[in-house]
Amino acid sequence: MSLSTSELESKHRPLLDQALAATRSRDYFSAYPESPSPRVYGETAAADGKTAFESLLGKEFPLTTPGASGTVATEKSPFGLPLDVAYSRVAPDGLDALLSAARAGMPGWRDAGPLARTAVCIEILARLHARVFELANAVQHTSGQAFVMAFQAGGTHALDRGLEALAYAYDEMTRHPRTAIWEKPGRDSPIRMEKTFTTVPRGVALVVGCNTFPTWNSWPGFFASLATGNPVVVKPHPGAVLPLAITVQVAREVLEETGFAPDLVSLAAEDPADRLAATLATRPEVKLVDFTGSSAFGEWLEQHATQAVVFTEKSGVNTVVVDSTDSFRGLCSNLAFSLSLYSGQMCTAPQNVYLPADGIETDEEHKSYDEVGAGIAAALDKLIGDDKRAVELLGGIVNDGVLNRLESLPPSARVMVESREVRHPAFDDAVVRTPAVLGIDASDTDIYEQECFGPVSYLIATSGTGESLQRLRSTVTEHGAMTASVYSTSDEVIAAARSAALDAGVALSENLTGPVYVNQSAAFSDFHGTGANPAATASYTDAAFVAPRFRIVQSRRHI
Amino acid sequence: MSLSTSELESKHRPLLDQALAATRSRDYFSAYPESPSPRVYGETAAADGKTAFESLLGKEFPLTTPGASGTVATEKSPFGLPLDVAYSRVAPDGLDALLSAARAGMPGWRDAGPLARTAVCIEILARLHARVFELANAVQHTSGQAFVMAFQAGGTHALDRGLEALAYAYDEMTRHPRTAIWEKPGRDSPIRMEKTFTTVPRGVALVVGCNTFPTWNSWPGFFASLATGNPVVVKPHPGAVLPLAITVQVAREVLEETGFAPDLVSLAAEDPADRLAATLATRPEVKLVDFTGSSAFGEWLEQHATQAVVFTEKSGVNTVVVDSTDSFRGLCSNLAFSLSLYSGQMCTAPQNVYLPADGIETDEEHKSYDEVGAGIAAALDKLIGDDKRAVELLGGIVNDGVLNRLESLPPSARVMVESREVRHPAFDDAVVRTPAVLGIDASDTDIYEQECFGPVSYLIATSGTGESLQRLRSTVTEHGAMTASVYSTSDEVIAAARSAALDAGVALSENLTGPVYVNQSAAFSDFHGTGANPAATASYTDAAFVAPRFRIVQSRRHI
Repeated sequence: MSLSTSELESKHRPLLDQALAATRSRDYFSAYPESPSPRVYGETAAADGKTAFESLLGKEFPLTTPGASGTVATEKSPFGLPLDVAYSRVAPDGLDALLSAARAGMPGWRDAGPLARTAVCIEILARLHARVFELANAVQHTSGQAFVMAFQAGGTHALDRGLEALAYAYDEMTRHPRTAIWEKPGRDSPIRMEKTFTTVPRGVALVVGCNTFPTWNSWPGFFASLATGNPVVVKPHPGAVLPLAITVQVAREVLEETGFAPDLVSLAAEDPADRLAATLATRPEVKLVDFTGSSAFGEWLEQHATQAVVFTEKSGVNTVVVDSTDSFRGLCSNLAFSLSLYSGQMCTAPQNVYLPADGIETDEEHKSYDEVGAGIAAALDKLIGDDKRAVELLGGIVNDGVLNRLESLPPSARVMVESREVRHPAFDDAVVRTPAVLGIDASDTDIYEQECFGPVSYLIATSGTGESLQRLRSTVTEHGAMTASVYSTSDEVIAAARSAALDAGVALSENLTGPVYVNQSAAFSDFHGTGANPAATASYTDAAFVAPRFRIVQSRRHI
Repeated sequence: MSLSTSELESKHRPLLDQALAATRSRDYFSAYPESPSPRVYGETAAADGKTAFESLLGKEFPLTTPGASGTVATEKSPFGLPLDVAYSRVAPDGLDALLSAARAGMPGWRDAGPLARTAVCIEILARLHARVFELANAVQHTSGQAFVMAFQAGGTHALDRGLEALAYAYDEMTRHPRTAIWEKPGRDSPIRMEKTFTTVPRGVALVVGCNTFPTWNSWPGFFASLATGNPVVVKPHPGAVLPLAITVQVAREVLEETGFAPDLVSLAAEDPADRLAATLATRPEVKLVDFTGSSAFGEWLEQHATQAVVFTEKSGVNTVVVDSTDSFRGLCSNLAFSLSLYSGQMCTAPQNVYLPADGIETDEEHKSYDEVGAGIAAALDKLIGDDKRAVELLGGIVNDGVLNRLESLPPSARVMVESREVRHPAFDDAVVRTPAVLGIDASDTDIYEQECFGPVSYLIATSGTGESLQRLRSTVTEHGAMTASVYSTSDEVIAAARSAALDAGVALSENLTGPVYVNQSAAFSDFHGTGANPAATASYTDAAFVAPRFRIVQSRRHI
């Protein structure tokens, strides 16, 4: 053991305390600076990170995986950069060895206690932070996020979310004293007992990563499960392995240095034909599953992994209700940004924009339905009309599924803004597209009552805001949503929108016309997802996300 | 509205604060005096409660139930008292009406907020407490618990558990501010937003009651779900409807007086042939299920009610490891009490008592295996040798299932203490039995690796304490347990027992030789069940028991 846990406890306790305070206030807090500027990270940080990333390409990734045999290389950069990183492959016949190795370290990790485990996890975050430029490159070239977004959403913001999950987990694990004296008044003398409460893990935790946000969506569950004492098996999306391979590498390194079993964390890279996630998720040893991805597989997990607690984030139909605005320009440019960011390949990107068929009142003048469409088109043109600028916002199209959807849009819809191919100045083979905006009617439910993941949104003409809100309520209740937003200058409409959002169980943003976008959620302040509608069964991060990950075992004795 | 919620908030806030403090300290706390003495409750309280109970017999219970048609009368007193209480019957075709009525009151109940809901729930507890003698009679004559136990376990201790669940629920609902200001430092000026966090319910909560502890096992889930905003449908065990009918009656009365929809709480009494619990638990409207009962149905629920969060308490093999003792008399009398209390018809009663085949060291002398058996037999004889005293501890046999098991004990086992029929001095038709203790060998796994619910326990001869602890670990891990206990004078053995209990995920009691029994758990101090072994997926009460019952929905706006 080259690093003592008590050292780590002292080192990270101040940050933990700050994070704990932030979870209580839900005020602004960030531990990992989001600006990739040399002024923050040093002159050579960006280049060093890029070099570190490049040194991993075309090779076998150095990681020990119990039960693995052979390798797989399944990633493809949306920017066209050849990756060819090979990972130890876990085949179904290797799962016994993998899970048994994972479980072997549990007693030692459990006995270390909440503070030591949390401090070890914060050290893992610190080491990931030290490799944040390398991670940003890895996220960029697997997810297709543009670099700055990959640095933030895939790096520093993801680190903040990880820390947030740790703070909640630590708080719940320590809400009871380690030892309590129980003294019951008795007839003659009191009855006294000493009671000891120990948090114990549930079992093996499985984290199933996604292609678009391999770190941001995986780290909360990863750290919540690990801090509460559970070994974690990470099953990355075959298209986004590298960011999670680095995560597992760092975690194993810190576990080993602190004297714990490195096999408490392992990477289960797969040949996609193996459908390893389904097999793993239903193993009796697996007691926790965190999944981000399709509704189809998410629902399958909820229905079949009944031996485990399953946390899912799936898909939904994110909704915007446009009633009126005191800043038509602000509305259009804010919405244009939300539609463009990472080509709408975010679980939080708006899709269904309801507005009255006869238009809306604005600060400029009454705007007809078509004029609203034109306003958004103009804002999009301003934002991403220039290819060189556009690529830094749009990023690349993550996979063929998204591209296919974009190329087979519903023929009955009116194209209000056409999608176009964008040429990336740095990567010839990058696949970059601008968002399409389609005009449809409220009766076209077959089009908009399902998620069209990617750069596609609908301007849906309704009979008025009353119908818009009713559609919000019904579509979100039935099909789910991660986000909703409303634009209105009327207090009554805002109140009605809040009420609809509460009924439908979706987070609401009101009148975003400035530098905050509906698809962005800030760690320690915004809850990501609610778990109250079909889009997700979990929220980053609340007590329900962490409390079921451990149990309390007591012993009692007379004193 | 004849009663304002703000009045109730002021009235019950001090008790809530005390309860909150107790959940944090896990020290001794009780809000409802456990002694049924006239000095505590007044000279006429006992008689008045009995009269109130008797006035309910032979009649239709006055309770409105949406969707009900006709009545059912399914209860049978283990003491032979004719009950003949008829309840509105909910048949499967009435569920649409029942669930829709339950859901109709949700927005108003949600909008009242955590403190008002919690105060209303504490008022329900207060009114149940005012009817505690009536409830004790109802529990006695449905479960078969002797009167004092029915008063405590079915009355005051159950009230304490209900309050405990409320305190945890309130604490979790209020860990975040209702409104937070988020101020992110910006290049020129900070970005400021106001964020509002609202707790919203999950949906309809189903509470499935059991025959033996209709109130104690139902109230934690009932109050946790109700306080977090969910309507609650109570499906009582057909053999123990009355205590929950009173519960529902009181809850509806308080809801109505405070201006909420009384249909937020309803009783779904059934014809047992309808198997209503299975139908209800898998309805899409039902999002929470609390169940106490058989492992078979509990596991069915866990596997099939996948649209809901399912909290179960099932069965297990509670374990005692006897290694050595400094009070042989204390050991025997403590164990005898635990075996006798309510004829072992407790989910916490010991069943598997492991001891070395070659006996144990004690304060008196070395005791052989047979001498330990004889010591327990003598203690049982002293405790329940006299019929008149015995019935006050044993109570009645709850149903024919228990009786049948007692009458078909494994023939290969050696009877060390025989069960006998006890004549109840007050109830001629009461079915009362003393516990049987059987001698078997550690190899008789087919006998002791399953629960034999009722007054049957096994003295299991092992090769030594090492094997005893290994059996504890393996049987509890595979078959579950609500309790474990150990007797030893050796620090090493106690440490090994603690380690085995942590691995198996079961609560451990050490060297109980006085007035605390392994089958008793004190609200606010002892966690009941761990959720960490197959006997239960939940614990009364911890954060994991309450946090998944609500969601947080936020709205945010620039300021």
